Amino acid sequence: MNKINPLLEAFQQTNFPVGGHGKRNIQVLIDALQDVDGQTDGDTYGNGKLIEDFQEEMAAFLGKESAVFFPSGTMAQQIALRIWCDHKGIKKVAYHPLSHLEIHEEDGLKELHHIQPILLGEKDRLIRLEDVLHIKEDIACLLLELPQREIGGQLPDYEELVQISAYCRSHGIKLHLDGARLYEILPYYQKSAREICELFDSVYISFYKGIGGIAGALLAGDETFTKQSKVWKRRHGGDLISLYPYILSASHYFKQRLNKMGQYYEEAIELAALYNQVPGVATTPSKPVTNMFHVHINRPKEQMESLLVNLYEATGVGLTHYLKEINETSCCYEVSIGDRYANVPKEELRKAFAWMESHLIENGV
Amino acid sequence: MNKINPLLEAFQQTNFPVGGHGKRNIQVLIDALQDVDGQTDGDTYGNGKLIEDFQEEMAAFLGKESAVFFPSGTMAQQIALRIWCDHKGIKKVAYHPLSHLEIHEEDGLKELHHIQPILLGEKDRLIRLEDVLHIKEDIACLLLELPQREIGGQLPDYEELVQISAYCRSHGIKLHLDGARLYEILPYYQKSAREICELFDSVYISFYKGIGGIAGALLAGDETFTKQSKVWKRRHGGDLISLYPYILSASHYFKQRLNKMGQYYEEAIELAALYNQVPGVATTPSKPVTNMFHVHINRPKEQMESLLVNLYEATGVGLTHYLKEINETSCCYEVSIGDRYANVPKEELRKAFAWMESHLIENGV
Repeated sequence: MNKINPLLEAFQQTNFPVGGHGKRNIQVLIDALQDVDGQTDGDTYGNGKLIEDFQEEMAAFLGKESAVFFPSGTMAQQIALRIWCDHKGIKKVAYHPLSHLEIHEEDGLKELHHIQPILLGEKDRLIRLEDVLHIKEDIACLLLELPQREIGGQLPDYEELVQISAYCRSHGIKLHLDGARLYEILPYYQKSAREICELFDSVYISFYKGIGGIAGALLAGDETFTKQSKVWKRRHGGDLISLYPYILSASHYFKQRLNKMGQYYEEAIELAALYNQVPGVATTPSKPVTNMFHVHINRPKEQMESLLVNLYEATGVGLTHYLKEINETSCCYEVSIGDRYANVPKEELRKAFAWMESHLIENGV
Repeated sequence: MNKINPLLEAFQQTNFPVGGHGKRNIQVLIDALQDVDGQTDGDTYGNGKLIEDFQEEMAAFLGKESAVFFPSGTMAQQIALRIWCDHKGIKKVAYHPLSHLEIHEEDGLKELHHIQPILLGEKDRLIRLEDVLHIKEDIACLLLELPQREIGGQLPDYEELVQISAYCRSHGIKLHLDGARLYEILPYYQKSAREICELFDSVYISFYKGIGGIAGALLAGDETFTKQSKVWKRRHGGDLISLYPYILSASHYFKQRLNKMGQYYEEAIELAALYNQVPGVATTPSKPVTNMFHVHINRPKEQMESLLVNLYEATGVGLTHYLKEINETSCCYEVSIGDRYANVPKEELRKAFAWMESHLIENGV
C-alpha cells in the first residue's frame, strides 16, 4: 500500500535518530499503563474521577478556573473561537497566516462555524504589537500561537506579549493562546505556565507534542467558558464515552517530561549551532527559543535526499525522516528535540556534521 | 464531587449483575492490548497499516467499498448526513423523533451543519413504510436506526426494510443506517451484515455497545463518500494523530463477541419473559428482537429504588443501576445483555424475580 520512501527507510535504520522522543508505536500506550490499576473506573462522557482529577490538575497548572479535556486541538480551538464570537456577536477573529486553523484543518472554522479569520502579520514573521494596534475590523478574539510553529518556533518578547494582552483587554478583544507547545516556551521566558496564561482569556494545550502522549488536548478558561465548551464538544462528536487512553498517557508523560523542557531547549541550541556551522545550511531561528527549529539547506530536495541517505548509512546518525521542497534550489525540515537527543553520542554527532559539510562542499555549494 | 446514589452503589455490590459485559474500567484496555506487539506502529492522521487494515476488514464485513474509523458516532453520522445533503443540494433529512441526533447531540446537526431534520413517525413506534411514502418535503437522506434504541430496540420486518430501501432508491433519497447496534440485529433477521447494509447507501457502526470496546465508530460507503468523510473528519477535529487505542480495542472485542450476538439475543428473550411474569412489570418489546429491551414498572421511581436496593442486598442479583421516571406512578430502565448474563446462576435469577414479585404484591401493585 505505502510507497517506498528511501529517506524514511534509511532514517528508520539509523542507530542515533536525533529528533523526537522515539517511535510512535503501541509501546507508548503500554508504558503509560504500567502503573495503572486495571480496576480504576474509566471516564464516562466527560464525567468520573479520572477525567475530573486530571482537568483540575491541569487547570491549576495553567492558573485557570476550569479545564476540559478534548480529543484534539483542532476541535478545542474552533470551539474556543466560536464561544468568543458568540459572546461578542461578531463572527470575526484574527490569527497568523500560518496558524494551524488556516492551513491544517480543511477550513473547519469557516465550514462548520462560519467564522471569518483576519490574517495578521506576514507568513515569514511573528504577529507584532503594531499589527494588533492596526487591526481595522472589529474582531471577537485574537489567537496567538506560542511558539509560532511554521516559522521554526519563534517567540515574541515577553514584554510585547504583555502589551498585546493589555491592548486586547482594554479593547474588548478576547485573547486565546494556541499553546500546543506551551511547556516548550517556559525555559526561554523563565516564566511559569500560570504567568504566561494570565495574559490570555482562554488556553489550549496539547499532550502529544513536547509531552509525547498519544493524542489529546485541553481547553482552559473561566467556568462559563469551559461549560459552554462542553456543549460544543458534544456537538462536534468529541464527547466520547471514554477518553481515558489519552488522559492516562497525557498524565503519564506530562509527569515524565515537563521538567525536561529546559534540557530539550538547551540541546536545541547546541544542535542548531552545529547546523549553522555548515556552509549552505541555516536554522530558523538561528538560535532556538524552544526545543524546535527549522533547517534550511541550499540544495535541491532530491539531491539532499541522496546525500542524507548516504550520511545515515555512513554515520548511523538520523537527522530527519523527511525533506520539504522550498524551491528548485533549496529544501527544509523541522527539528523537535525530545528524549532521543541525549542518547546520541556527541562524537557521532560531530562526525555526522563533518560528513555533511565535506559532502556538501564536494558537491559544490 | 459525585452525589451518593444508593441504587448505583447497591448495584455495584451485587455478586450477579445481569446486564452488560462488565465494568468499564481500565482493564478493558489492558486486556485488549495483551496480544499486541508493542513494536507495532501506531496510526498517524488516518494513515498506516493498523488503521487501514481494520478499515478494510470492516468494509468487507459490511459489504461496502470503503470504510473510515471515527472517534464517535455523533461525528460520523452528522458527517454522513452532511455529505448526502451537499450531494443533493438540499439541507433536509428525515429520521425518527427519538434519533440519537435529535436527543443526545446538543443539536450538532443543526448548529454545525444547518441541516433541518424532518421527524418521521411517532415517538412510541418505528418509522413505517407509509411514513416514508408520505414525506411531503424533498429530503436528501433518510436515516434509519436499527434497532430503534429509545423504544426498547424494536425492528421493522425485513420485507418492510426492503420496500423502504427500494422506494428511497427510486426517489433519489439516500438511505443511511444508524447501525450503532448492527451486530445485535443479525440473529433476528437471520441475515449477514452485508445483506442488511446492501439496502443502505451509507452505514455507521459503533464499537462500544454490543462489542464492548472503549469508544470509536466506523462509517462505510462508496469511495467517493468515505473520501469526503475524511475531509469532514478533519474539520470536526476527529482526525487525531493516533486513534489506535480505540482501533485495537474495537478489533479485539469484535473478534471476541461478534459470534455471541445470537446468545445475547436468546438470553434477552429469556430474561424478558421473567420480567413479564411479574404483575405490574412489562418489557418493550414484549419479546425482544435483539439483546436489548426496556423494562416498565407501574411503581413510583423512589419506591422502586428502595425495593431494588433491598432486592440486591437480599439476593445478590443486580438488575439495573438506574431508574428513569416516566410519570408519578411509573418508571423504566434499559437492559442490554452481554457477557455477564451467562455468569448469573439461573437459580439465583429465579429467586430474585420471586423476591421482586412478592414484594411488589406486598406493596400493593
